[in-house]
Amino acid sequence: MTLAFGRDHLAIPGPSILPSRVLRAMHRPAPNIYAGSLVDTTLSILADLNRLAGNSGQALIYIGNGHAGWEAALVNVLAPGERLLALDNGRFGRGWAGMATALGIEVQTLHATPGEPLDPARLEAALRDDTAHRIRAVSTVHSDTSSATTNDLAALRAAIDTAAHPALLLVDGICSFGCEPVDMDALGIDAYVTACQKGLMTPPGLAIVLIGERAANARGDAPRSPYWDWRPRLAPGMFPERFCGTPPTHHLFGLREALDMLFEEGPDRVMARHRALAGCVWAAVDAWSGAGELRVLVERREHRSVAVTAVRTRDGDAERLRDWCEREAGMTLGIGMALERIDRHGTATVLVPGSAQFRIGHMGHLNPPMLLGTLATIDAGLKALGIAHGDGALAAAASAVADAAGSAAVTAPNVTRD
Amino acid sequence: MTLAFGRDHLAIPGPSILPSRVLRAMHRPAPNIYAGSLVDTTLSILADLNRLAGNSGQALIYIGNGHAGWEAALVNVLAPGERLLALDNGRFGRGWAGMATALGIEVQTLHATPGEPLDPARLEAALRDDTAHRIRAVSTVHSDTSSATTNDLAALRAAIDTAAHPALLLVDGICSFGCEPVDMDALGIDAYVTACQKGLMTPPGLAIVLIGERAANARGDAPRSPYWDWRPRLAPGMFPERFCGTPPTHHLFGLREALDMLFEEGPDRVMARHRALAGCVWAAVDAWSGAGELRVLVERREHRSVAVTAVRTRDGDAERLRDWCEREAGMTLGIGMALERIDRHGTATVLVPGSAQFRIGHMGHLNPPMLLGTLATIDAGLKALGIAHGDGALAAAASAVADAAGSAAVTAPNVTRD
Amino acid sequence: MTLAFGRDHLAIPGPSILPSRVLRAMHRPAPNIYAGSLVDTTLSILADLNRLAGNSGQALIYIGNGHAGWEAALVNVLAPGERLLALDNGRFGRGWAGMATALGIEVQTLHATPGEPLDPARLEAALRDDTAHRIRAVSTVHSDTSSATTNDLAALRAAIDTAAHPALLLVDGICSFGCEPVDMDALGIDAYVTACQKGLMTPPGLAIVLIGERAANARGDAPRSPYWDWRPRLAPGMFPERFCGTPPTHHLFGLREALDMLFEEGPDRVMARHRALAGCVWAAVDAWSGAGELRVLVERREHRSVAVTAVRTRDGDAERLRDWCEREAGMTLGIGMALERIDRHGTATVLVPGSAQFRIGHMGHLNPPMLLGTLATIDAGLKALGIAHGDGALAAAASAVADAAGSAAVTAPNVTRD
Amino acid sequence: MTLAFGRDHLAIPGPSILPSRVLRAMHRPAPNIYAGSLVDTTLSILADLNRLAGNSGQALIYIGNGHAGWEAALVNVLAPGERLLALDNGRFGRGWAGMATALGIEVQTLHATPGEPLDPARLEAALRDDTAHRIRAVSTVHSDTSSATTNDLAALRAAIDTAAHPALLLVDGICSFGCEPVDMDALGIDAYVTACQKGLMTPPGLAIVLIGERAANARGDAPRSPYWDWRPRLAPGMFPERFCGTPPTHHLFGLREALDMLFEEGPDRVMARHRALAGCVWAAVDAWSGAGELRVLVERREHRSVAVTAVRTRDGDAERLRDWCEREAGMTLGIGMALERIDRHGTATVLVPGSAQFRIGHMGHLNPPMLLGTLATIDAGLKALGIAHGDGALAAAASAVADAAGSAAVTAPNVTRD
Repeated sequence: MTLAFGRDHLAIPGPSILPSRVLRAMHRPAPNIYAGSLVDTTLSILADLNRLAGNSGQALIYIGNGHAGWEAALVNVLAPGERLLALDNGRFGRGWAGMATALGIEVQTLHATPGEPLDPARLEAALRDDTAHRIRAVSTVHSDTSSATTNDLAALRAAIDTAAHPALLLVDGICSFGCEPVDMDALGIDAYVTACQKGLMTPPGLAIVLIGERAANARGDAPRSPYWDWRPRLAPGMFPERFCGTPPTHHLFGLREALDMLFEEGPDRVMARHRALAGCVWAAVDAWSGAGELRVLVERREHRSVAVTAVRTRDGDAERLRDWCEREAGMTLGIGMALERIDRHGTATVLVPGSAQFRIGHMGHLNPPMLLGTLATIDAGLKALGIAHGDGALAAAASAVADAAGSAAVTAPNVTRD
Repeated sequence: MTLAFGRDHLAIPGPSILPSRVLRAMHRPAPNIYAGSLVDTTLSILADLNRLAGNSGQALIYIGNGHAGWEAALVNVLAPGERLLALDNGRFGRGWAGMATALGIEVQTLHATPGEPLDPARLEAALRDDTAHRIRAVSTVHSDTSSATTNDLAALRAAIDTAAHPALLLVDGICSFGCEPVDMDALGIDAYVTACQKGLMTPPGLAIVLIGERAANARGDAPRSPYWDWRPRLAPGMFPERFCGTPPTHHLFGLREALDMLFEEGPDRVMARHRALAGCVWAAVDAWSGAGELRVLVERREHRSVAVTAVRTRDGDAERLRDWCEREAGMTLGIGMALERIDRHGTATVLVPGSAQFRIGHMGHLNPPMLLGTLATIDAGLKALGIAHGDGALAAAASAVADAAGSAAVTAPNVTRD
Repeated sequence: MTLAFGRDHLAIPGPSILPSRVLRAMHRPAPNIYAGSLVDTTLSILADLNRLAGNSGQALIYIGNGHAGWEAALVNVLAPGERLLALDNGRFGRGWAGMATALGIEVQTLHATPGEPLDPARLEAALRDDTAHRIRAVSTVHSDTSSATTNDLAALRAAIDTAAHPALLLVDGICSFGCEPVDMDALGIDAYVTACQKGLMTPPGLAIVLIGERAANARGDAPRSPYWDWRPRLAPGMFPERFCGTPPTHHLFGLREALDMLFEEGPDRVMARHRALAGCVWAAVDAWSGAGELRVLVERREHRSVAVTAVRTRDGDAERLRDWCEREAGMTLGIGMALERIDRHGTATVLVPGSAQFRIGHMGHLNPPMLLGTLATIDAGLKALGIAHGDGALAAAASAVADAAGSAAVTAPNVTRD
Repeated sequence: MTLAFGRDHLAIPGPSILPSRVLRAMHRPAPNIYAGSLVDTTLSILADLNRLAGNSGQALIYIGNGHAGWEAALVNVLAPGERLLALDNGRFGRGWAGMATALGIEVQTLHATPGEPLDPARLEAALRDDTAHRIRAVSTVHSDTSSATTNDLAALRAAIDTAAHPALLLVDGICSFGCEPVDMDALGIDAYVTACQKGLMTPPGLAIVLIGERAANARGDAPRSPYWDWRPRLAPGMFPERFCGTPPTHHLFGLREALDMLFEEGPDRVMARHRALAGCVWAAVDAWSGAGELRVLVERREHRSVAVTAVRTRDGDAERLRDWCEREAGMTLGIGMALERIDRHGTATVLVPGSAQFRIGHMGHLNPPMLLGTLATIDAGLKALGIAHGDGALAAAASAVADAAGSAAVTAPNVTRD
């Protein structure tokens, strides 16, 4: 007998669970796209995205997904033939690098071991080696969604500074934005790419690119793809030029509402809530790891994303568990993505097959009944399938919630949720 | 710090959590109310309500809440001065009796101890005592929402039959319909009152009254309140007469969708799912009862509602816990309602104050991540507040889910949920 | 070929067209019904209903439709056997009187000719005749939806005052509330009944009863139907007692939003808009009346409702036209209701069969493209069906809009519509 | 006094009015993006888009707007340096050509006089001149949204065939798809670009590119922008590769519903409805042209788009009228876009300033009350502003509706609209 008939529960690392408020805000008639409230709404969104990212520069919204944001940033910053130093922590860091290669950019890659951040010393060394300053930009993910690893952006920034290298810093914050703090100005991030469907709690469809002055002018007046070209978007004649054509009306309604929610809660509280709930996941997995083979893929807490956790299993168990949760309990866990180690010769070895890993998304619109429900359903699945696991995971998770709620560093705001 | 910012989670015994499908079905333009699809929709709803209740008689929908349904049934079955034998298992059984008194009906009440069903032998005795057959009808709740107690309808029916008494049987299925099976024809239920906001997963606003032939004609042509009078509703000239005026258009859209969901899953599976999830709640509370004062209010499993569970606590703990869950975790538990014992002289003594009890609703659109999330959040609250409780509650609940899902007596249907 | 595939357009006298904002407000999760924002929302609604009606007394909301509101007012004001003087302008005035009779109230009726208001002199005479002051209350519609006639409430009030009669004044404002101004205090209205699905732009499901001090206490402590009894609703212990049980959560969300819209536009502007748009309808029908048999049923402008217009046709044409509009153009007109003249002997003669009349609703959420679209579609139907009609109706309607918009007595507010 | 408080009425040439069904379909929880129903939904959409376009080739959906579709088609068909022969009928034909230039494609343009289609003889001549077959592709709009002119695709196809030139034919059907029939296979269209927010009745956010075999392989294995590259999208490994990353989940839900509506009505009936309603607009404007300066910009009916009509006015009147309609009546008309004539030296002269033109969108979800309401509101605005115009426009439009509905060539389907 399946018990799945209730709310389908999505616990994947994006798209994340959509607040009722956001869906409601999107359920409205088509607006005028040349004048009126859509214009004000858009400008307020751009301002709030910058505010959330600590960016004193400019903000762009592309109709597209995260990959669109990647391409937009690359096309406007790097000409074919110019060199990008790409940091790789998993499938997404590597994917961005691959996109650059396809665009004719010359790519040099530093591969981290999956589950570990990129060692800043390696970045510093690579930049020092580039005495001719041929490297025009460094790209990195903040958190890699596939391995659930987080890089230390401040340390990477420091490495660039220490190397006294003029490379631009391009950051993929797709997985982390709205979950993990970022301060573009303080970190000297020149271009920051994100998307609306994770921490920003909006259905997929918008890529967001936040830029500083250096990135804005990186390619001067060089011709480039009109769709990605950010120059007319930043200095539009008619309003639709901000979007190279018809604006994404309903996504703008949704994103406006999501940002309202975020600022009503307060960005600091949002980030603290993500950290607390991530701790709750880790407490559970640590308890499960007491017997059998489950464990958090990223060993050290400070290297873990607060938005997604990858859980190692015996090969095959991850898939069985995901199937059980979906079929019997109405809950969808994130698929495992194969993680490879790449040696100095560029040879790839699979370190963790996709079938030996699953991921729990814990980003965005999330509170204890939702997250504890996820963990408890996994626990039920482990029991139903006879997958060996340590005891006490749920009590540990509940204790983590109790401790976090009790710590009360920040006063609760009085706002409407739903 | 509050962690409440996610989906507000409602774990009260109605209104229950609304499926997205139901809300979506209600989000539509106003329809023609004299002809067209609304008429067909309504007729199909009435047929499906009867099907779900095993009623070969007629179905009525009143714009109103459960209390409206109570009054509709009373007004059409009993004239002022006629006698009702009312069974009382808590606030709702007693409330219905009180309504009858206010309507001028003569009421004789049998009070059960809160947390226990009414002893069928007492019903039989009372009916046997009524040699003049002055008792025109017997009223009872199926499950009482305040005490979470369930009566054994078959045993009550048998008592009436054994007493060879012609009284009509009126049943309040507000808390149980769609959760616990009922077969009106087999049980000889003459009038069955329910509402749309619990097992039927629709926002409050509709009272449902299902009747058999005897109830339909109980008062013959006697005049009565036009709004409650079911005669024109059962034989309408123009369609709106089914509702004594403008029909509840959007609630009909919603209820149609909810019934579609229920029949897509299959009523047997729906009832089995409720029983399984109730077992999961009881497993958790039983574990908590290992230390401290928490325990299921209704002692014996066969006396418990599968739709709601009342949990006894030390006086005051229930309120502290409810507050914590709402404020810190975004979850609303059901309030405790004071339960009284009434002696043979009619003197009431509070047996369980409202502050020493809380209720967990587990009715309607519910699956493991939702229910386990509820239980785990309560567990976190107990820990945060230092309320003594036994260990292992969540593991027990997860095991109960694992066992129920694994039992697989019924093949899972392949339908769309959300 | 049908051209109907677009928005279904409802031009009936209620339920009226629902604003997107209202439907959106109703599309949300089930709330806590004992505490929290639902309580505040409800209290604010009650206050705003009173404000809109100029009532310094109290406001009640019943889950029900307009007929429920009728019964609630009668049950709380009049005991069986007491006398009501009922004014009849059509099916609804008469319907309310019929309900009183069924409730055991002694009813004396003054019948107006359909299409005419009740002559205040007749009311005055009837009250003067009642030297014993046996008449406890006078009931009247403000506007009768079936005949689209409006009574002059101030003149009726003056008649009661001139007769120096203590009868309570009960008014049915179901068709007029939110369209036509009413000032309960100034008019000495003791109980005012309305519903949410017309000028209040909310799906059907709520009856509203606004009362003054005299009505509140009219029956003292006399027992009455618990569902209608307004005493516990006005002095609730727990919040749900305001609704005699579970509150109509989603309708409250919707009505709150509708009232927000109404106050954002401004009640004066709302009323002026209705008057202007009604004038636009009349201009069109007057032009059609230049040839053939179409004409506004109510002859004199000051006797016409601003919320609905009944249009006389040759017998049968009304039905053909309604069918054509629905089938070919996706537009639903209001059905005609047979209107009868009742002579002094109580003998009824059909004055206007339902098939010789249709009605255009022009209440609530309505602006020129909607209303002119209605009129132009009727015009197309007349042409398609070869129903004789005068020329220039649409130009006349457009001119009426041009003139009204141009008159600009009131400055336009800057608010969000949709 | 403004009368605008009702449904905001959008009469612009896209985004078009959204059906309730479409918005409702989009109001749902986030789905699994790797497996399950989203995959089937997407495949069914792709098949139905091809079916609607008469394409036996392949279909692609890009997250983007119409401009994104333009770029996708160009990038996959033409390498930098290759030659495109671009036909220009207004801002959009010219815009596509400009995009090609920016992408490094060599562009040769044939400029039509605004308001006229491109003479096929000029296309034939240009292709004959290209004896070396340097022209790799011909691009044209089907209908240009700015001038509301339609090209005769069959004649253009014939011109290419007559010239026996191997150029690929690229067509922009953004304004026409779902309104005007197209048969890609029969017309030999190699790539057809459209978007979801006009005839497809879905909020903006999806570009659609339908291609045949020759276009699919036009650039062989040449590297290109990964986001636009259609090769991995046509042969995806994991499902998200169809969208180069996260799929546009909610837009897919919406588009699926819109296509359901379109096929329920029947594509032939949809196209016939658009033609009939366009005729209704033209009848009104022709009547207005009886006095003053209003007239349809495109002189000959066979050159007019059935989805949008541009109306010439005295300079300045267009803007005054648009302002009045928006402010006083809640209706938004399409802005005028300046139309230029370009001589053989490439010198542009403004033929129609934007301020001397407005546009009426009549595409998608549209029926008589909506369209006649638009025309009647314009008529009211002309009167209010004292803009000279001929009489009888609305009667003429109503007659056109009466005639079209009466012609009844196609039997009406019995389906749900809203």
